[in-house]
Amino acid sequence: MPEFQQIAILGVGLIGGSIGLAARKYNVAAKVVGIGRSQEKLSRAQRLGCITEGTTDWQAGIRGADLVVVCSPVESIVPMVEQMVPFCQPGTIITDAGSTKQEIVDTLHTSESIRGRKDVYFVGSHPMAGSDKSGAEHSVANLFQDRVTIVTPVAETDRTAQATVRKFWESLGSTVMEMSPAQHDASVAVTSHMPHVIAALLAASTPEAMLSLTSTGWGDTTRIAAGDIELWRQILTTNRGHVLQSLANFEKLLTAFRASLEAGQDEHWIKLLKQGKHHRDIVGS
Amino acid sequence: MPEFQQIAILGVGLIGGSIGLAARKYNVAAKVVGIGRSQEKLSRAQRLGCITEGTTDWQAGIRGADLVVVCSPVESIVPMVEQMVPFCQPGTIITDAGSTKQEIVDTLHTSESIRGRKDVYFVGSHPMAGSDKSGAEHSVANLFQDRVTIVTPVAETDRTAQATVRKFWESLGSTVMEMSPAQHDASVAVTSHMPHVIAALLAASTPEAMLSLTSTGWGDTTRIAAGDIELWRQILTTNRGHVLQSLANFEKLLTAFRASLEAGQDEHWIKLLKQGKHHRDIVGS
Repeated sequence: MPEFQQIAILGVGLIGGSIGLAARKYNVAAKVVGIGRSQEKLSRAQRLGCITEGTTDWQAGIRGADLVVVCSPVESIVPMVEQMVPFCQPGTIITDAGSTKQEIVDTLHTSESIRGRKDVYFVGSHPMAGSDKSGAEHSVANLFQDRVTIVTPVAETDRTAQATVRKFWESLGSTVMEMSPAQHDASVAVTSHMPHVIAALLAASTPEAMLSLTSTGWGDTTRIAAGDIELWRQILTTNRGHVLQSLANFEKLLTAFRASLEAGQDEHWIKLLKQGKHHRDIVGS
Repeated sequence: MPEFQQIAILGVGLIGGSIGLAARKYNVAAKVVGIGRSQEKLSRAQRLGCITEGTTDWQAGIRGADLVVVCSPVESIVPMVEQMVPFCQPGTIITDAGSTKQEIVDTLHTSESIRGRKDVYFVGSHPMAGSDKSGAEHSVANLFQDRVTIVTPVAETDRTAQATVRKFWESLGSTVMEMSPAQHDASVAVTSHMPHVIAALLAASTPEAMLSLTSTGWGDTTRIAAGDIELWRQILTTNRGHVLQSLANFEKLLTAFRASLEAGQDEHWIKLLKQGKHHRDIVGS
């Protein structure tokens, strides 16, 4: 028997679509309702097997859902959840897939709408999976397989809801780690947001006339720079402090590398290359 | 009928092995002789179909070759070619696959051994293809397909030999561009050597404890950091000036990005993200 009678996915793009595909594949939910603004996109997601039905009426979409997964861009998660909470049935658990957590979790736990409903629960999540592509048509059921999802409980988080959300991501194939929203944001600044900025700057610093001379190395290193600008604007804006810190650390390393290459202190920069290879080899292909 | 009776490949690793596979697949040469130091590796390359025979005796290996392709690490290309030239049969063309060109081409064209033989020709090449993996076991026949190979003629280059080398790379599926060794080195500093350094520093700047929180983005962006340290030491050492220049340009962009993110001048850094995406989209997947 499925773990959930009905889950609602708000925003059926790459992440939402992949959640739906995985939830259906692993029989996590009997019904998977997609909520979106475009009936055409919802119909396409339904044809792709991401959802069992779709609606542009969010109030209808969350009715009867045990679990609502908000997969909209980070800046719209808080207003969406605040608007939704008064209409949720008792016992509804809400989680999200936002790439930053502190602002979202802090705001929602001090929000009047959430505080007014003791029988509706919010638990912040971030599945660490994605692509430079977007849209339900790029969804894959195994997107979360062997990937980490971070769940970010705080003091106010309901422990049963937290366990349910954890189990949900695990049933999609993900390994769940729990940490505070602040620790999450500091970590992903280093492992995800800084790499995005660096990849974009690498692509930006390559003159257009030289692009035909790029190879697989440039291609891999800059791949994520193709990601949606508005999504990334929101991510970097809501995690500004930590991103600045990680960029400053990177800049120090770059300056040290350049200075030692210039000075002919070859052992210094070779040591940095070795450290990079060591970390890369730990992660593996 | 094949274009060459016999080609000799000095160094049957990923690049040399892939040249052999492609040369055999497209019937570019009747015989493909691999030259290396380890009989075991040569036998493996032969079993993999990269070469038709292998020898650890380089003098025997180049005997009867119309074309010799030197695929050893950049710092050993000059001594190899100098040693080899006196033993080449009249008409032999020598090219290489080194990632830097100015030092190699300049040294060889002023070299006594090359200047003493008017009937042996050197033409510098750089196939812009590769992998973070090494060894003949990772060779693929289509490594050069739809990839650019840069051929770097100088005033002293024999035009017939240049045309033959150009045609050789084209028969392996590559698109050939010709430019001076200096222009080559300045270009690949930007499109290949700088990305390698940045990828390595990105991996190096990620604390080991956070590596489990990396995802596909970090994985793509740092992939080439796994490359062989000694090969990259030689590349960066022989292209130091251009690499320093491109790193300095990158550093300026990074500083500008960080300053505008810190100051809340969002339009500035968003413009850089957009420029990065624009360049990435031009290159495509």
